[in-house]
Amino acid sequence: MPTMLEVTDVSSSAGACCSPLVREPLSADEAEQLALTMKALADPARLRLLSIVAASEGAEACVCDLIEPVGLSQPTVSHHLKVLTAAGFLTRTKRGTWAYYALVPDALDRVAQVLSP
Amino acid sequence: MPTMLEVTDVSSSAGACCSPLVREPLSADEAEQLALTMKALADPARLRLLSIVAASEGAEACVCDLIEPVGLSQPTVSHHLKVLTAAGFLTRTKRGTWAYYALVPDALDRVAQVLSP
Repeated sequence: MPTMLEVTDVSSSAGACCSPLVREPLSADEAEQLALTMKALADPARLRLLSIVAASEGAEACVCDLIEPVGLSQPTVSHHLKVLTAAGFLTRTKRGTWAYYALVPDALDRVAQVLSP
Repeated sequence: MPTMLEVTDVSSSAGACCSPLVREPLSADEAEQLALTMKALADPARLRLLSIVAASEGAEACVCDLIEPVGLSQPTVSHHLKVLTAAGFLTRTKRGTWAYYALVPDALDRVAQVLSP
């Protein structure tokens, strides 16, 4: 039986919106975009999930290994992972029964660059 | 008549909470702290205000010059400036009638360092 493989599209690219915050005033559109990216990071559970994935081997982790460390229900963890994926920080790959989440290379770097060029 | 001078204490120091996000999983306490910092940045009006102050001469601006560019009421602008000050990104100094807001040196750098060491 072939292994099921499904990769979710990254619907937005974290931090790719804006020129550096301190160089010139952000436009209204840039500020809206950047605020959405920041909102994805403005939650303690999402920050912990992101750091667990990032610190995992190959910067990838099975959803099955993410539930216990944060002490939340599976639906709640899945919701937070969906937000991080939609914001462009993670990608999702399904292998067999489980979904695996991987850190998007450079996603956090791009946000950092906007804050501190 | 002496000039009134009042400097608000910085009640927290932006981004000073945490070791780098990608090195090891954040603790629950670190994640709570960092999420509060991110929440201060997760609003388009606050991002615009911060970038206007940062791009101003001497990285300081009078509140009287911040209202028109963002197109919000003075109480709303004052609220957003208060949140940015409480989060450690701005300091507030009163000179005569007006309050002046200055960027805290390194505050954005520290957040960037946590995201991307």
